Amino acid sequence: MRFRELWDEIAPVGRDADSGGYLRYALTAPELRLREWFRAQADLRGMPVSEDGNGNLFAWWGEPDNGDPNTDGRVGTAAVLTGSHLDSVPHGGAYDGPLGVVSAFLAVDELRATGADPVRPVVVAAFVEEEGARFGVPCLGSRLLTGEIDPDRAAGLRDAAGVSFADALGARPAGADPALADRFAAFVELHVEQGRALVDAGAPVGVASAIWPHGRWRFELRGEGNHAGTTRMADRRDPMLTFAFTVLAANKEARLRGAHATVGRVAVEPNATNAVPSTVTCWLDARAATPETLRELVEAVHAKAAERARRDGTELTVTPESATPLVTFDGGLTDRLADLLAAPVLPTGAGHDAGVLAARLPTAMLFVRNPTGVSHSPAESATDDDCAAGVVALARVLEELACR
Amino acid sequence: MRFRELWDEIAPVGRDADSGGYLRYALTAPELRLREWFRAQADLRGMPVSEDGNGNLFAWWGEPDNGDPNTDGRVGTAAVLTGSHLDSVPHGGAYDGPLGVVSAFLAVDELRATGADPVRPVVVAAFVEEEGARFGVPCLGSRLLTGEIDPDRAAGLRDAAGVSFADALGARPAGADPALADRFAAFVELHVEQGRALVDAGAPVGVASAIWPHGRWRFELRGEGNHAGTTRMADRRDPMLTFAFTVLAANKEARLRGAHATVGRVAVEPNATNAVPSTVTCWLDARAATPETLRELVEAVHAKAAERARRDGTELTVTPESATPLVTFDGGLTDRLADLLAAPVLPTGAGHDAGVLAARLPTAMLFVRNPTGVSHSPAESATDDDCAAGVVALARVLEELACR
Repeated sequence: MRFRELWDEIAPVGRDADSGGYLRYALTAPELRLREWFRAQADLRGMPVSEDGNGNLFAWWGEPDNGDPNTDGRVGTAAVLTGSHLDSVPHGGAYDGPLGVVSAFLAVDELRATGADPVRPVVVAAFVEEEGARFGVPCLGSRLLTGEIDPDRAAGLRDAAGVSFADALGARPAGADPALADRFAAFVELHVEQGRALVDAGAPVGVASAIWPHGRWRFELRGEGNHAGTTRMADRRDPMLTFAFTVLAANKEARLRGAHATVGRVAVEPNATNAVPSTVTCWLDARAATPETLRELVEAVHAKAAERARRDGTELTVTPESATPLVTFDGGLTDRLADLLAAPVLPTGAGHDAGVLAARLPTAMLFVRNPTGVSHSPAESATDDDCAAGVVALARVLEELACR
Repeated sequence: MRFRELWDEIAPVGRDADSGGYLRYALTAPELRLREWFRAQADLRGMPVSEDGNGNLFAWWGEPDNGDPNTDGRVGTAAVLTGSHLDSVPHGGAYDGPLGVVSAFLAVDELRATGADPVRPVVVAAFVEEEGARFGVPCLGSRLLTGEIDPDRAAGLRDAAGVSFADALGARPAGADPALADRFAAFVELHVEQGRALVDAGAPVGVASAIWPHGRWRFELRGEGNHAGTTRMADRRDPMLTFAFTVLAANKEARLRGAHATVGRVAVEPNATNAVPSTVTCWLDARAATPETLRELVEAVHAKAAERARRDGTELTVTPESATPLVTFDGGLTDRLADLLAAPVLPTGAGHDAGVLAARLPTAMLFVRNPTGVSHSPAESATDDDCAAGVVALARVLEELACR
């Protein structure tokens, strides 16, 4: 297993010496170096690389009948797609994204070493701007490919320096591939786990059942700004109290439902040590296994906050800012892979390109154990042994899907 | 009573049309206009204005023996000092400060109208930078005059644009007046109330007993930054929870002790909607009637926060940032004025120039009823009738202290 050898090739790229985290924003120098590395790896394996005009790269083992999967609607035998993304969040971990690409190339090596003879092409993908850290829309590459975002809107998205996605890409994005579902029979994305379910299960690899529905709600709490020294407690209308109660209520209501609720962002006016605040605005990130549980969770937090606002003499406005529906991965495919690998099945709270492609293709995800459970942080980790187990699992999945 | 007439002269100066609040920072254009108005009012009354080299202005009715209260240590009959300040907090109210200056000039008019013949000079003061809104140190003018701050340190204080206090003043401040206690027999500052005790007491005017001891403590809570979507509630070390509990504990512990506790300022890292925070820093502003109660309050909040930090798996560091001891106004003087005016006696939680001068001179404060109880906000208010009652009360006090 060449895992460590291949992993070390990309480990220094885009790494911040101070934080130890990665700054691999889509189509910036570090990510462009990783894309060059991707082409070199494909070349070493004799896998021609095609592009879809949206910034996504595809390395082909085996050719579609038409020899060109992008410019001609005719396709032959549908391929099995794997891979992930190369970009990172600010000061993100090493594994989120690249592990799925490195594992895909190594799984091809594994299959070839066993003399496997695929009846379908095996394709390794690198999707662009999965994190949305540069242009603000997560899974931008897969959303373009599936037609979930308008190419003109995507073209006009700008980074913090004002550079548009079209300028970074060098062209207006091509948008949806109408033959996508004919071209690909399935997509399997391998990803580092972003929690500790596999640690508890004692398993190096798991299979995803679903991506929880999730959303963001803005809670705006208005009270009365006042002098912290002279205003009697009984005379205050302090929105910081309502906010604090809401944070604790969100935590409690999520735990009661086995769901996730986070208040990670807050803005206080005037945010002065000696002033009772006039306004506190916070954002609730809520996720749950089902849309019903998610709705109940948000309603419960809203009700608790409203009750406390009445006690505090503050005013509450709740505004939904975004909502992402439940993604259920292909049940037949998920069960088949879980049986094949004797692996536990677990849901996840995070979005992925696999969640986008699941609307168009039979899709599954494999997770690799993360001892810290931490993600989007330099503390994200996976052992070399578990990564090797992930490669073996992915190779077995590709053998199952492409060689029979 | 000319209250409204005189009040309307300064009402437009430095008023923000949008908020209705005042932007009268020390030694900026609006406050310099108020200082010109102060000189004109003194001139109208035949009261020569002296300066102390620290930015404070003094208008004299009656001359000290040496005819110059600032450059010569020799003084004659000690004067009775009154007045307040002309500067405001950002978007502050109309009354905090200027009411004490306007009332002082009107009290001189009242005394003169009754044919009073002071045996001591009566001096109207305007202290500079009472709010600390421009150079960061509250009561800067009175601290310089009493020697509570080093003139070189004061000279080097800079505003947000980088302008030093010395440059704004046009000179290095002169610092302490060693003859201060000889020059002035007493200081009486009239101020709008910054709470609602006089509303409850049904009295237009009250006398201050003390300024509560108060201070600021920085609470730094460190947890583990993580992905809001994928990190199970049980695996989190979320400092926002510890913070929220601390806010509610501070409120409860203050109410139990009849004290004041406020958390009005917070900083969150990374402050992202989809991230469990890694660090939350907040500032506790705490004030109580006695140093013992204040200490008990802060210890109780600290203990509750530490207990919750253990539950949340977070780490707590508490750092005292500032402490202001109890100021007890001259008991004999306070009782004498309360008897004279048949006015209620009440403590306050806010700092004032009177609190600084109390260390050097017999000092008292009069408060004028504020129907909203709100201060440091455009909602701060006082009726013309109550302001007139304040003038009458101040005139009686000056008659008592300067004419007998």
